[in-house]
Amino acid sequence: MPQSEEANTVYEIESLLRVVATTVRKNGRAILVDFDITPPLFDALLWISKRDPEMTIGELSANLGLAYSTTTDLVDRLEKRGLAERLRDTEDKRVVRLRLLREGRDVIEHVLDARRQYLGEVLERVDHSNRLMLLEALRLLQKQLDQV
Amino acid sequence: MPQSEEANTVYEIESLLRVVATTVRKNGRAILVDFDITPPLFDALLWISKRDPEMTIGELSANLGLAYSTTTDLVDRLEKRGLAERLRDTEDKRVVRLRLLREGRDVIEHVLDARRQYLGEVLERVDHSNRLMLLEALRLLQKQLDQV
Repeated sequence: MPQSEEANTVYEIESLLRVVATTVRKNGRAILVDFDITPPLFDALLWISKRDPEMTIGELSANLGLAYSTTTDLVDRLEKRGLAERLRDTEDKRVVRLRLLREGRDVIEHVLDARRQYLGEVLERVDHSNRLMLLEALRLLQKQLDQV
Repeated sequence: MPQSEEANTVYEIESLLRVVATTVRKNGRAILVDFDITPPLFDALLWISKRDPEMTIGELSANLGLAYSTTTDLVDRLEKRGLAERLRDTEDKRVVRLRLLREGRDVIEHVLDARRQYLGEVLERVDHSNRLMLLEALRLLQKQLDQV
């Protein structure tokens, strides 16, 4: 339980970040149903896109926090759906990497667009200076995340 | 692609929120390994705790964005692990609701503590006034989320 003012601030920021991010994520999710894609599949796509085409299944499994076998199943489904594919490393043939396919990229763009549209509607209700304050505060936070 | 300054701001805020929340979540996750709990199980616990002991499996499945059968499997695992349990509705015996058990609550507390500890270390590097700016900005955003 928080005791100092510092701890209270951390407590509240963690909670707000969690609720805000969950709500925005949830509102971009409606579109996943249209694409017939589950949230775990989408999360896998998003991680793959971050290091496309370098990510190995081991890294993907660590990023998703899922067992290797569960991750392999997800990758099988991504391949079957034509969203991503396995790729042999050119230097070391034993290493398998993951490449996003065009349709996978489209799915990501559509979902992020839906999130942005929802967030845009929310931010319309926040005045200009407060919107800039939010942007500035998040930039500061991200800069520090990169360094811890 | 963003065209106006407004759209650019929304674009960047969505991206920052996503990266920040993902990083904080990932850093609280190390502890899940100690509890031998997967991220989907933890997410289920977190949702159940929000409406404890009112949430039905249908609602949980909608919140998680997972199929009903997948959600049933998750609930089976939560019960087997003694983290949550099914509960017959007292008024309508056909309705099954979910109740968090003490060990489930402990898991949530430990994981959120780990996230707060990580976030606390990050926020130590942000000066006091900027920390308050972040808090204020997130409060404003959440207030608007509730209304859209």
